Amino acid sequence: MDSHEDLYPTRTTTRTPMFPRLDPVIHGDAQTRSSGPLSAEELAAFERDGFLFFPGFFDVDAIQACIDELKRLSADPAVQATGGVIREPHSDEVRSIFAIHRISPHFRALARDPRIVDRVRQLLGSDVYIHQSRINYKPGFKGKGFNWHSDFETWHAEDGMPRMRAVSCSIILTDNHEFNGPLMLIPGSHRVFVPCVGETPEDNYKHSLRDQQVGVPDEDSITELVRTHGITAPKGPAGSMLLFECNTLHGSNANMSPDPRSNVFYVYNSVENKLQQPFAAKRPRPEFLAERAVEVL
Amino acid sequence: MDSHEDLYPTRTTTRTPMFPRLDPVIHGDAQTRSSGPLSAEELAAFERDGFLFFPGFFDVDAIQACIDELKRLSADPAVQATGGVIREPHSDEVRSIFAIHRISPHFRALARDPRIVDRVRQLLGSDVYIHQSRINYKPGFKGKGFNWHSDFETWHAEDGMPRMRAVSCSIILTDNHEFNGPLMLIPGSHRVFVPCVGETPEDNYKHSLRDQQVGVPDEDSITELVRTHGITAPKGPAGSMLLFECNTLHGSNANMSPDPRSNVFYVYNSVENKLQQPFAAKRPRPEFLAERAVEVL
Repeated sequence: MDSHEDLYPTRTTTRTPMFPRLDPVIHGDAQTRSSGPLSAEELAAFERDGFLFFPGFFDVDAIQACIDELKRLSADPAVQATGGVIREPHSDEVRSIFAIHRISPHFRALARDPRIVDRVRQLLGSDVYIHQSRINYKPGFKGKGFNWHSDFETWHAEDGMPRMRAVSCSIILTDNHEFNGPLMLIPGSHRVFVPCVGETPEDNYKHSLRDQQVGVPDEDSITELVRTHGITAPKGPAGSMLLFECNTLHGSNANMSPDPRSNVFYVYNSVENKLQQPFAAKRPRPEFLAERAVEVL
Repeated sequence: MDSHEDLYPTRTTTRTPMFPRLDPVIHGDAQTRSSGPLSAEELAAFERDGFLFFPGFFDVDAIQACIDELKRLSADPAVQATGGVIREPHSDEVRSIFAIHRISPHFRALARDPRIVDRVRQLLGSDVYIHQSRINYKPGFKGKGFNWHSDFETWHAEDGMPRMRAVSCSIILTDNHEFNGPLMLIPGSHRVFVPCVGETPEDNYKHSLRDQQVGVPDEDSITELVRTHGITAPKGPAGSMLLFECNTLHGSNANMSPDPRSNVFYVYNSVENKLQQPFAAKRPRPEFLAERAVEVL
């Protein structure tokens, strides 16, 4: 393949129809597939749905340690200075802190937890590294929702991720329930790529992390996918873990409850899927959003 | 009681604590209580929770007739001219049509349906009339949510409804599910009044019907009520009916699904609870929002 061949053209001027993905969902060979903790049933579910949910995967102590570390980071002036702190659109509350595997020894260690990494390696069929990490805090009442989107679409367009060979891991630090804006997924949507209309504005990330407008699939495509596959919102106690394929469409609603919704988020990319130049943006996003240094876990 | 004594002061300059309601939840006497279709269990549930949900109350044909009538009204230029057509904040789509019992013979007849009116009379212990009516249409994806609020707070402040002696009836025309922004209620919240901070702006309704900012309870009070009572979102097929007390706190989230959410909404007020001058606004809202002509059903 050409070093910068674009298999997934997006941010187009006119609408182009969705098409089947050109990459496998589970990578590697029979050997790598069977060498990991995921069962054949779990692998089949991931291939079909584009995600796996593990209720109560981490215990209470592990989650409390993450919450304590989040509090420490939120209060640390050095963290504020990294540029990776994103606030709510209509208030000053912290919504996300990025690059937590760089700025926090605690979250650096958690990113390497073999219970996660062994599963991810099994799915991606290779060694992996952290493409992005963050901790999200959606306060009670104030947390806004997020439109339907594919993370891969943004990583391809704005970060230069060439292929679909990455997996996101979300560890929820608070109970997820119907009313605090849980993550919603369209199962099976990872099997198609929906090109998005609209050129990427300069420094788009400064706006898109608060309220995504570009890189949002058209409503007709989402409608078709929801009519075929439905919507699901995995719910569970704090400590539950979600692994989802980089191209699975997801979104969330506003938090209508007094309960915060907080999670730790790691994106694992295959070392064989290194970033190139952005496919649909003038320059790459900052390092805190897209690591260019491949550091094998 | 003084003809304009204010039992429920609101739109205050400083926060005042919530207090127990000064009116019964179920009005009338033993005689009116027992003379209607609601069972003792249903009456007890309404008294405790502030609402009653009847899944599949109306049949498919009745609902289809309402949808057909909605389509007719939406396309009728005479309806556009009534002033009672409210559009979405960020698009031009119809969100609500008001005073449907005035402008539509179909919805006028439905408002008088004895299956509704007999139940409402039993709850309010008197004859009743329509205080407000409307049809809401929340399109797929585009429907915005609504903050937590008590309808009575607005009707008291802006319409001059003196006491808590009204019941809302919502008939859903589309299936209600987790992802299309169903109505959420805080059961039991009807038993307290939460005064809201902030003076009513001139012609507040022009803004508040799209995005309510004034007459919204403070977050501490909502938190306390949710911690005590929880949140519930009744779900069911098109044709389901919800009766809820005028002071029950409710809200809704955005519609994240391709499915519209549409409902018919009637507010029944007791003929013994006639409107006075607004308790916290310079002048009454227009007739399409608050009927001043008491026409016994």
